Amino acid sequence: MTQDTSPARVRLRLVFSPDFALGPGKADLLEGIAETGSIAAAGRRMGMSYKRAWSLVESLNTAFAAPLVTRSRGGAKGGGASLTQTGEQVLSHYRSAERVAADAARDDVGILRDLFRTEARDGKAD
Amino acid sequence: MTQDTSPARVRLRLVFSPDFALGPGKADLLEGIAETGSIAAAGRRMGMSYKRAWSLVESLNTAFAAPLVTRSRGGAKGGGASLTQTGEQVLSHYRSAERVAADAARDDVGILRDLFRTEARDGKAD
Repeated sequence: MTQDTSPARVRLRLVFSPDFALGPGKADLLEGIAETGSIAAAGRRMGMSYKRAWSLVESLNTAFAAPLVTRSRGGAKGGGASLTQTGEQVLSHYRSAERVAADAARDDVGILRDLFRTEARDGKAD
Repeated sequence: MTQDTSPARVRLRLVFSPDFALGPGKADLLEGIAETGSIAAAGRRMGMSYKRAWSLVESLNTAFAAPLVTRSRGGAKGGGASLTQTGEQVLSHYRSAERVAADAARDDVGILRDLFRTEARDGKAD
């Protein structure tokens, strides 16, 4: 039986240029699109307006070598969205980066968490 | 002669609770206070108002086991600020976490950067 020993949530922001960074928000949106097949639904479950979700998709689609999200029109639901091969690649490498980074930083983050917890949990000075 | 081969800037955000995260902004502010001996000066060089800098310091000072920043009153410059031992520890472990995380994520980030660069740099499709 393993317990969850993760000392804190490690979030990664990859700054590729002054104008473009890939972080947890865009990654979660891509993941939501892959899972729901819809930009609107993916945005909704993150509490994001359709306009905001679509603007992030546009930013993602123009930042990389190829679009990350593709839309199909028509059909029973009035069209859907899915990740392109590049989109799947980008999401997968971002998630992998998150994983290995969190793993590598575990000792430092554990020490920081202990310093954080002492005060936050019981307020004792000694 | 080593070139800068870092493929992108990796920024780390450590979420310790729903109310408190430690990220590059707070870390840079702590570093600025250590270097300038002043909350106002540290904030200024980040383009931050004194009010904002002071509010971040208050948040840091109450989140951990002990205050991270201490102020001295009086003196020629009307008092200054410096990091406590806990403040130095927190900054040092955050910087270490950043370093090892960026190093561990290097391969994934390199692939993402290549996908990013292709389009962003020359716009060629092949």
